[in-house]
Amino acid sequence: MKIRTLIAMYACLLSIFIAYAYYYQQDISRIRSLQDEISSLHGKPDEKYVMVTFQSGMDYWKRCLKGFEDAAESLNVSVEYRGATQYDVNEQVTVLEQVIARKPAGIAISAINPTTLTKTINKAVEEGIPVVLFDSNASGSKAFSFLGTNNYSAGVTAAHEMAKLLKSEGKVAVITSPHQLNHQERTRGFVETIYQKYPRMQVVAVKNGKGDALASKQAAMEVLNDYPDVRGIFATEANGGVGMAEAVAELNKKYVKLISFDTEKQTLDLVKEGAIAATLAQGTWNMGYWSLQFLFHLHHHLTSPSRSGDALLPAYVDTGITVVTRDNVDHFYAK
Amino acid sequence: MKIRTLIAMYACLLSIFIAYAYYYQQDISRIRSLQDEISSLHGKPDEKYVMVTFQSGMDYWKRCLKGFEDAAESLNVSVEYRGATQYDVNEQVTVLEQVIARKPAGIAISAINPTTLTKTINKAVEEGIPVVLFDSNASGSKAFSFLGTNNYSAGVTAAHEMAKLLKSEGKVAVITSPHQLNHQERTRGFVETIYQKYPRMQVVAVKNGKGDALASKQAAMEVLNDYPDVRGIFATEANGGVGMAEAVAELNKKYVKLISFDTEKQTLDLVKEGAIAATLAQGTWNMGYWSLQFLFHLHHHLTSPSRSGDALLPAYVDTGITVVTRDNVDHFYAK
Repeated sequence: MKIRTLIAMYACLLSIFIAYAYYYQQDISRIRSLQDEISSLHGKPDEKYVMVTFQSGMDYWKRCLKGFEDAAESLNVSVEYRGATQYDVNEQVTVLEQVIARKPAGIAISAINPTTLTKTINKAVEEGIPVVLFDSNASGSKAFSFLGTNNYSAGVTAAHEMAKLLKSEGKVAVITSPHQLNHQERTRGFVETIYQKYPRMQVVAVKNGKGDALASKQAAMEVLNDYPDVRGIFATEANGGVGMAEAVAELNKKYVKLISFDTEKQTLDLVKEGAIAATLAQGTWNMGYWSLQFLFHLHHHLTSPSRSGDALLPAYVDTGITVVTRDNVDHFYAK
Repeated sequence: MKIRTLIAMYACLLSIFIAYAYYYQQDISRIRSLQDEISSLHGKPDEKYVMVTFQSGMDYWKRCLKGFEDAAESLNVSVEYRGATQYDVNEQVTVLEQVIARKPAGIAISAINPTTLTKTINKAVEEGIPVVLFDSNASGSKAFSFLGTNNYSAGVTAAHEMAKLLKSEGKVAVITSPHQLNHQERTRGFVETIYQKYPRMQVVAVKNGKGDALASKQAAMEVLNDYPDVRGIFATEANGGVGMAEAVAELNKKYVKLISFDTEKQTLDLVKEGAIAATLAQGTWNMGYWSLQFLFHLHHHLTSPSRSGDALLPAYVDTGITVVTRDNVDHFYAK
């Protein structure tokens, strides 16, 4: 081999090397700037947040969980879904105890009733686990926030929608579950709004539908027989909506305008075929999404800094109500 | 130069080169994984969000802006603070028009009154600019959410605090601004709670303090002269608090328990020296922080996906109230 060839190779290799080093250096500064860009809103995949419900197989929770999962994806953390399979207080307490024992990064819970879970929720908070309530509150507990529907406002919305359907005139009735706080509030919002804002409308009956389609059908039949000129009925929960639709069909009074609650498939089908004029959708995705955001902020100490006296998080988030009619019903079927 | 030396150099250079290439390759995969970690909650520094207030120099806004800025830092975006310098409706409309003209990524606005800004706010929304309201609502507008104090709840909290101070017994009074909705609600929450929950307490007077220290002092003097056995006064705004403290000092009735509102420096000083027993701090940091989070989510279409019918954001966020007493007052001075 000639020396000249070796020197040429040497020069060539050296220039490749220099070029290589140059690009490497550029990439190092790119890494630095990328590292700067990774924000504080970024967790670890082994950081686990748990959603706890009751009657955990219900369709209703699916959109809550979707919101929870979407937030987890944005924040690069993991989630788990747990719940009492039945409508059973003791089962939910047991599930919550099990979840606490595994020390998750945070817990979002929908309380089966306002009092029974308080002690267990407080235990979690005292052990340093962030807890928020969503959908159904336990207002005496130490949980940091509650995210759910303002049921009084939901009743107000139903009243305005009913007035729109009836051109602000005529007799109306309510089918509800009078022993549950959320249903009491929906009824009160509806009744007070009709009374205060629509002088040519009148609520002639508030009946107990017992959260059951058959009992609600019976209640609606009574209303329609006792007050033959009733022109609208508001049911404060989904089974009531199904029951009253059956009553109206059976009595052949399809001119009676019906407003129901929630977005179970059966309800949506009735809206689609025109049997129910409108139903009220709760902001379930927002409940789940902002629950996880709040838990993440608590876990990473990103809440209200520098003034330890401040409330760490908003006390209450009203996740809102959307009116579902034939026009927009297709968007509400589970995907 | 000997060929052997050249070959040795060549081998040496080659091995450095190989080592270099190996590390480079490792860094490339590090870059890839870093890029994966940059979440969707990450904006661009030229993405500008604007906070718009009135009486923009007021201390009150500082914590709102701090929350707004802290969220901007987390989300890697920019913020700007604008506002009417005076308590002037037209000036705020003009400022808002100017802000809209520059097409920012989002606007958080505290409305000087509930109606006058509605048209301009709607214009922004129709042009595709996300808008949320904080602190003071314009409820008829197309803004996507409102984040602020639940004033009725604040009055309820004041009533419970007063009951604690007076051991649930004795006559009390309120000094308020009876023509402003937020003050009406604070008064109503206070009066209704005393009436419903504390049978041995009584609200004997509700006076107009005109939002002014001197007028409030006068009102408090009248109360204390007309009802010599009054044992507590709740002022629904900061100047009222200062005025009633002066009245109590002048009449040498320091046993009368005073509860004020907000955390102006003068109020905090009075709490610190014991002249005012408690004041109610609003969740101003949370107003600013979650306003920016909401605007960011709207701008980046991260709200309620896949069901276009859902409400994009929670309708209302109650940012909560914290009771400030001598024990925790130090945390509330502006830092």
